[in-house]
Amino acid sequence: MEIKLVKDILQANEVIAAQNKELFAQKGIYVINLMGGAGAGKTTLLERTIERLTGRRRMAVIEGDIATSRDAERIAAHGIPAVQINTGGECHLDGNMVRGGIGQLDLAGIDLLVVENVGNLVCPAEFNIGEDAKAMISSVAEGDDKPLKYPLMFQVSSVLLLNKIDLLPHVAFDVERFRADALKVNPRLEIIPISCTTGEGLDGWLRWLEERSGKRGT
Amino acid sequence: MEIKLVKDILQANEVIAAQNKELFAQKGIYVINLMGGAGAGKTTLLERTIERLTGRRRMAVIEGDIATSRDAERIAAHGIPAVQINTGGECHLDGNMVRGGIGQLDLAGIDLLVVENVGNLVCPAEFNIGEDAKAMISSVAEGDDKPLKYPLMFQVSSVLLLNKIDLLPHVAFDVERFRADALKVNPRLEIIPISCTTGEGLDGWLRWLEERSGKRGT
Repeated sequence: MEIKLVKDILQANEVIAAQNKELFAQKGIYVINLMGGAGAGKTTLLERTIERLTGRRRMAVIEGDIATSRDAERIAAHGIPAVQINTGGECHLDGNMVRGGIGQLDLAGIDLLVVENVGNLVCPAEFNIGEDAKAMISSVAEGDDKPLKYPLMFQVSSVLLLNKIDLLPHVAFDVERFRADALKVNPRLEIIPISCTTGEGLDGWLRWLEERSGKRGT
Repeated sequence: MEIKLVKDILQANEVIAAQNKELFAQKGIYVINLMGGAGAGKTTLLERTIERLTGRRRMAVIEGDIATSRDAERIAAHGIPAVQINTGGECHLDGNMVRGGIGQLDLAGIDLLVVENVGNLVCPAEFNIGEDAKAMISSVAEGDDKPLKYPLMFQVSSVLLLNKIDLLPHVAFDVERFRADALKVNPRLEIIPISCTTGEGLDGWLRWLEERSGKRGT
């Protein structure tokens, strides 16, 4: 009974996610679903990304959080459209919540939309929102054992940002073990080590993003 | 419909959690539900705790993970009973899963049982498992904005271990802001800054634990 209902919820979500996806395709918007545990560095990555893509892509961000509008305020301070969704306790975004967020954006003015999911290494991976690609961010401070312990997000993501590599001298983290385990879970995963503090590796991420998102604005 | 079913699940869980709690009380076992995001340092805290409580409390651990038995192996290597529960994708432990774990332990030989929940700053806080107290662990690498963004776990916990304070020189983290926000969410929360790497602060955590858990063994 419980399992059946979970299936129903996931199927209903798929319908709405497909509608979102069709709308994004019509408008020529490339959409990233950015996921990761709380504190992995999702919002900071977005801030660095916005700074570097100014004039090259017309970006917008939908922020998913359980409470507060802090992340949307951080993003809006960089001068791009930002919509905050408060899930009211829910541990992930779903297609319907994102549909609500889309309604607050001028889609004609956007090339690239990043939806920052709730900080959670588990549940967001189960729900499509109509994205073109799922990106995940993992911090070296979280430890190198995460790919095998939390495999789903690694499986469904196209790209993995391994963040906070500036902390590597101070934490026990085996990059090669992490990389091997992540590729065992998802052999097609592209892994880009970065530091949003020093800027190291961000060029690779920007390249990944620009190759995929079109530029229609100018 | 969906909301009603969620309520039903939570109510059914409360019944089982109450049964677990009664069993623990009968056996004189103090039970901690240890929660926190993935990579906050839950298992490492347990390893340091076991080392220091050897001969003072008879400990056992139930490990909740989505996949792998790595954490239970790490704990068992310290010579105490350890049971691994794999949730099979579920993002939290519930009373019924813990009941299954209890069945694999010799309860007569235990003073203190720690149940390490799935790494997730959100969902575990919603489910009682029959514990005496909820403890949470947060890492300075996760950022100081977590209490207001993920309030529920801070609200339901009795004690908060602020871990990895050895990284404070290398990360942007305002301890006083974090403390003030955590106490705003839960004025009764006891906050203990620790480092499982250097051992700093662990005395305070051990004192908290020993004051609450009885010693029946010798």
